Amino acid sequence: MKEGNLFSEIPDGAVKEVFTTLLKTGAFTLERIVSSGQATPPGQWWDQETHEWVILLKGRAGLMFEGEEEVRTLQPGDFVLIPAHRKHRVEWTDAVQTTLWLALHYRE
Amino acid sequence: MKEGNLFSEIPDGAVKEVFTTLLKTGAFTLERIVSSGQATPPGQWWDQETHEWVILLKGRAGLMFEGEEEVRTLQPGDFVLIPAHRKHRVEWTDAVQTTLWLALHYRE
Repeated sequence: MKEGNLFSEIPDGAVKEVFTTLLKTGAFTLERIVSSGQATPPGQWWDQETHEWVILLKGRAGLMFEGEEEVRTLQPGDFVLIPAHRKHRVEWTDAVQTTLWLALHYRE
Repeated sequence: MKEGNLFSEIPDGAVKEVFTTLLKTGAFTLERIVSSGQATPPGQWWDQETHEWVILLKGRAGLMFEGEEEVRTLQPGDFVLIPAHRKHRVEWTDAVQTTLWLALHYRE
């Protein structure tokens, strides 16, 4: 996908989160994630091999890091760098509107 | 800058475009660009050593590629991949509001 609009063709109310790869090289993968109220299942954590720079561009979400007490609320424009193997989970995403993320997964 | 909000601390009506590096590795540089009506000077072209995946997130802009007859109008969410050495210029950016871009410069 060489050009397009990130805010178009957003599936509405999808049962699962939708991941779309926008760009991929040996060093990184850039993807769009569309959430429709989904969250990481209770008791589960993401533990990723790659670093992830992620920005929320639409909607809202609650992001939790292992060892932290408070859930961080992400609003449009908020970005965060999640180092590889930093365990985290998405506590919630907006139940009313779709939540759109742009994620850059990479190795050093 | 490990976390923040891409839409905050936007300089308003700056004389020059403002470039902020968000993330940099040996393989890529991720940067925010804020334009306030600037354009590439007449007769000049960008000719870059790296590929650039760029998305416009706020405002509007006109992007021209060498050899093409029409200026492409970019609106929020529009992204485009500009291969290295593909000559291009920004014909105009929104004169009323700031224009915000997220650019990923990379080598294969």
